[in-house]
Amino acid sequence: MTDQDAPFVTRCYELALESYTEGGLPIGSVLVRDGRILGEGHNRRVQQGDPIAHGEMDALRNAGRLPHYRGTTLYTSLSPCMMCAGTIVQFGIPRVVVAENRNFGGNEDFLRERGVRVDVVDDARCTALMARFIAEQPALWNEDIAEA
Amino acid sequence: MTDQDAPFVTRCYELALESYTEGGLPIGSVLVRDGRILGEGHNRRVQQGDPIAHGEMDALRNAGRLPHYRGTTLYTSLSPCMMCAGTIVQFGIPRVVVAENRNFGGNEDFLRERGVRVDVVDDARCTALMARFIAEQPALWNEDIAEA
Repeated sequence: MTDQDAPFVTRCYELALESYTEGGLPIGSVLVRDGRILGEGHNRRVQQGDPIAHGEMDALRNAGRLPHYRGTTLYTSLSPCMMCAGTIVQFGIPRVVVAENRNFGGNEDFLRERGVRVDVVDDARCTALMARFIAEQPALWNEDIAEA
Repeated sequence: MTDQDAPFVTRCYELALESYTEGGLPIGSVLVRDGRILGEGHNRRVQQGDPIAHGEMDALRNAGRLPHYRGTTLYTSLSPCMMCAGTIVQFGIPRVVVAENRNFGGNEDFLRERGVRVDVVDDARCTALMARFIAEQPALWNEDIAEA
């Protein structure tokens, strides 16, 4: 992680915590270009009853229409699922910074094989918050990753 | 294509046409289980300024929260991009019916390798509508598939 990355990882944690306090899944994400946030968001499955609103998807939606994603970095508090990983590849996002992949992961190689730079920074705050949520709300967590 | 599939392919075309008449990308989709529509939608990039609202994603969003996707079929007027294909795999949707893949395709094998049944029915209405849109609005089409 570079010094430039640190505040955006912290912002992911803050967004995750915001979602947690709303009763939602604590996963936050920020899309950045040239040190500027283009869009940020968090999981909204509970808040909006929206199954596609994972943190990364919400950040991309809030960034709105962009002519291209060159030069962007997508920060996320939790390693991307297959939906979000597919979206990163489709949109041509060149770099992903993953705060943690201890609670969920497995698509890092899918991304790297398609030319995406993936940096996992192992953030203790994001790991602890996600682990707490999974212990408290296992059914909601399984629903979010479609594991019956 | 089975007799059961035909009306849902037609519904995808109708939804695509609805989006086209709104000035949007003509791509429609329907999520079905046991012959019943759980959710339907169309691309809303133009209508809502939402880059993740591809037809398939909009149908899944409109279906709302589901405990699982077993037994579902996702119908789509156009072959799924990598975002939508990743979502199909993540959600565990077992079957996709693609109205056409002449104008866009390439993720059929990705899906099949992950156990998804993919049927391409080569619908002439969907093919003609999509081709017309791409000829009329090439910049918008390229934006939607993130090709600069």
